[in-house]
Amino acid sequence: MEGASGRRRALPRLVLLRHGQSVWNRDNRFTGWTDVDLSERGFAEAREAARLLAASGIAFDHCFTSVMKRAIRTLWIVLDETDAMWLPVCQTWRLNERHYGALQGLDKARTGEDVGEAQLRVWRRSYSARPPALALSDPRHPAGDRRYALVPRAQLPAGESLADTVARVLPFWHERIEPVLIHGRTALVVAHGNSLRGLVMHLDGLGEDEVAELEIPTGTPLVYDFDEGLTPTRRRWLHPPAEPI
Amino acid sequence: MEGASGRRRALPRLVLLRHGQSVWNRDNRFTGWTDVDLSERGFAEAREAARLLAASGIAFDHCFTSVMKRAIRTLWIVLDETDAMWLPVCQTWRLNERHYGALQGLDKARTGEDVGEAQLRVWRRSYSARPPALALSDPRHPAGDRRYALVPRAQLPAGESLADTVARVLPFWHERIEPVLIHGRTALVVAHGNSLRGLVMHLDGLGEDEVAELEIPTGTPLVYDFDEGLTPTRRRWLHPPAEPI
Repeated sequence: MEGASGRRRALPRLVLLRHGQSVWNRDNRFTGWTDVDLSERGFAEAREAARLLAASGIAFDHCFTSVMKRAIRTLWIVLDETDAMWLPVCQTWRLNERHYGALQGLDKARTGEDVGEAQLRVWRRSYSARPPALALSDPRHPAGDRRYALVPRAQLPAGESLADTVARVLPFWHERIEPVLIHGRTALVVAHGNSLRGLVMHLDGLGEDEVAELEIPTGTPLVYDFDEGLTPTRRRWLHPPAEPI
Repeated sequence: MEGASGRRRALPRLVLLRHGQSVWNRDNRFTGWTDVDLSERGFAEAREAARLLAASGIAFDHCFTSVMKRAIRTLWIVLDETDAMWLPVCQTWRLNERHYGALQGLDKARTGEDVGEAQLRVWRRSYSARPPALALSDPRHPAGDRRYALVPRAQLPAGESLADTVARVLPFWHERIEPVLIHGRTALVVAHGNSLRGLVMHLDGLGEDEVAELEIPTGTPLVYDFDEGLTPTRRRWLHPPAEPI
């Protein structure tokens, strides 16, 4: 660990971490805002991420995550295994996974058979295409969920494009994460494939085509170092050491 | 559960919960700010508290806890078992256990033999007596712990009386917990024997002699209902149902 405030490095640092495999990742179903838990493999991936972070010597000051248990569980495992349960955590719907509308719960392969692979690819890989929206009366609509009771109804998605997801992630980045970093602190963001795509798009200056093809692996920390002006100066993945021969 | 915002009860409610038994509770050692984990029995007590809270139908809006893992772990177990991991949590050193100074780590029975039962009773049951303070150079002093890096040095205790503990708990009550309650919301506070004594002293209007004798059992939720002006109107413990005969 990098020690107490007197010995702290002065430059901002950020670690992005996608949650471990969820039960519906494993089952190849559209998840979106469905609050499924980690699979057994997902628990193991979270523990491995904790080991990599502990070995890196990175000491966090502040954590951010979504309001979905697969991300929160991953964060809890990291905090527990690195003896940092005391760290402040901010949880927000703005870091949630892309809302997959009426596709949520469907089997991806069967949906491809039903609507055709071309349509499926548009929904999954286009930057601006939205899936069919959930009706407000649908029990899956977030308006019926206590955890979104303080979100203005007009802001609650019922089916998002990747562009929509990026548009609601970035205000949180600017309002809550950048102020932590600008003080030379180190932040951990545990989130989802598409909310993290939005952050990487912003940080790496990716175009719409590039970000739609970007794959962020589960349980693999991505470390950004910044200069005082919050321009990224270095970017690296933490991977497990290669197996000895 | 009591449902979404439209159906919410309008009056404030508070649940106080002392963490489950810790490893040093079990071993009869002075713990204070030593960051020991729950014992096996402590884990079971936390799960039982979660079952009692789920059965009560109380739905929380906001959680508060200390920066000690025995309290955070207890809260995590409650949140996990009641499917409420998404709830906002505020962690603060002001809800920590009373700082037990140089007594931290000592066996209580052996300390009684060494200093006499009368002195031991003064340290444990007097309202205003302080234990011997930790030196700033002592590795147990909180000034060397990253989690307190943002607490002004003059406010960091090295050995507290119960009066000292109450004096640093109440500002947090007024600044952070009361504003949540005054909006008609429901708060959960998971903390420690002595920080909870401070809150109960304030809420029940106890005198110094009464609070020093007050015992708050581990893992047993204490529910307060309030009127709109934050005057308590009802106070009850949640206990497991009696065993069938």
